Amino acid sequence: MHRIVTETGILDANEKLAVENRDCFREKGVFVVNLMSAPGAGKTSLLEQTILRLRGDYRIGVIEGDLMTTCDADRIRALGVPAMQITTGTVCHLDAQMISRALRSFSLDGLDLLVIENVGNLVCPAEFNLGEDLKVMVFSTVEGAEKPKKYPLMFHEAAAVLLNKIDLIPYAGVSLEELCNNVREVNPEAGIFPVSCRSGEGITDWMEWLIRSIEAARRSR
Amino acid sequence: MHRIVTETGILDANEKLAVENRDCFREKGVFVVNLMSAPGAGKTSLLEQTILRLRGDYRIGVIEGDLMTTCDADRIRALGVPAMQITTGTVCHLDAQMISRALRSFSLDGLDLLVIENVGNLVCPAEFNLGEDLKVMVFSTVEGAEKPKKYPLMFHEAAAVLLNKIDLIPYAGVSLEELCNNVREVNPEAGIFPVSCRSGEGITDWMEWLIRSIEAARRSR
Repeated sequence: MHRIVTETGILDANEKLAVENRDCFREKGVFVVNLMSAPGAGKTSLLEQTILRLRGDYRIGVIEGDLMTTCDADRIRALGVPAMQITTGTVCHLDAQMISRALRSFSLDGLDLLVIENVGNLVCPAEFNLGEDLKVMVFSTVEGAEKPKKYPLMFHEAAAVLLNKIDLIPYAGVSLEELCNNVREVNPEAGIFPVSCRSGEGITDWMEWLIRSIEAARRSR
Repeated sequence: MHRIVTETGILDANEKLAVENRDCFREKGVFVVNLMSAPGAGKTSLLEQTILRLRGDYRIGVIEGDLMTTCDADRIRALGVPAMQITTGTVCHLDAQMISRALRSFSLDGLDLLVIENVGNLVCPAEFNLGEDLKVMVFSTVEGAEKPKKYPLMFHEAAAVLLNKIDLIPYAGVSLEELCNNVREVNPEAGIFPVSCRSGEGITDWMEWLIRSIEAARRSR
């Protein structure tokens, strides 16, 4: 559901709270990723793969956004990582206020990396800054090569675009080359990572990119 | 983007316009389907399959909703069916006002069936009645069996749920039985149709259901 006053009003108000969140993250020295995608593209699976490879070297926390259910947070906690679930009811995205409220009970102390997994929606989450360092998106290659042109905002905002389910490409009739070209057309700067979160293919390149990003932010502080 | 006053206000205003649209559809004797799904689940492919089988017996029109591009309307027109594209910019769903405006230039005269293909989004479109006779949704089985529980509203509102891309199930590690059970849990009344819009598998059952629905509405008028 769409609470709101005016387009400008809601985004201005969100931006102010996002700045407060960002200040809070900086103060605690935690690097924050806002992870977005359409439903079922593989955000939680990517998080699992990432946590398994990173948890020896970085202390990770996760905030999960979903309309209903706590199953994603349960999957993350099963890996020994603190996770908080925000259930949004009918709200189709996370906003800075929801994160601000969550931070009252979710401790950032000692964390190196916080991943905020947004509600599954390829449209609205990209409009709401949460105070993150980076927006990262997962796209299921099975959804079709033309989607970056049809839903350009999230592709444009993302610093990294993970093209997931490449193990299904031989059966799905989708051209990975065409998809990559369409992503580049919308966002020439994005890191593009074809991956399979099921098989682990391509995850290493994504991990190296993420670690470089975390370390670069540390050095600049 | 989310234009709005209050949650109740926007939905009340939408409902009034939806009633006006419905009256207009009834007057013209056209049966209207609001077709919804997440991005890339296969709405346009389903429409192509449906048009190819139905166009000999029913006069069909299509209104397409997309953030950007007119490629879906182009695909429909290539089948000899009149199609109008509504590009919503940043708005994540169609609403009754957009349809009302479209009807000023899109003629319903002589049509038996109008399909309104909504913006690809598994959350927001389900909240906005357009004046349709039926809501129908397409779900890509590859998105995972648990999604009806996580995004219940659209599954709850749909009179028919098409479970598309069943040709990918052997490779995707998704249980069709678990998915069907989860759909039934959210909506025990819905018609459930496992299909492959690529291979045509299962489309016949959907067609029979759709024709029965159109004919039942005709008899009741």
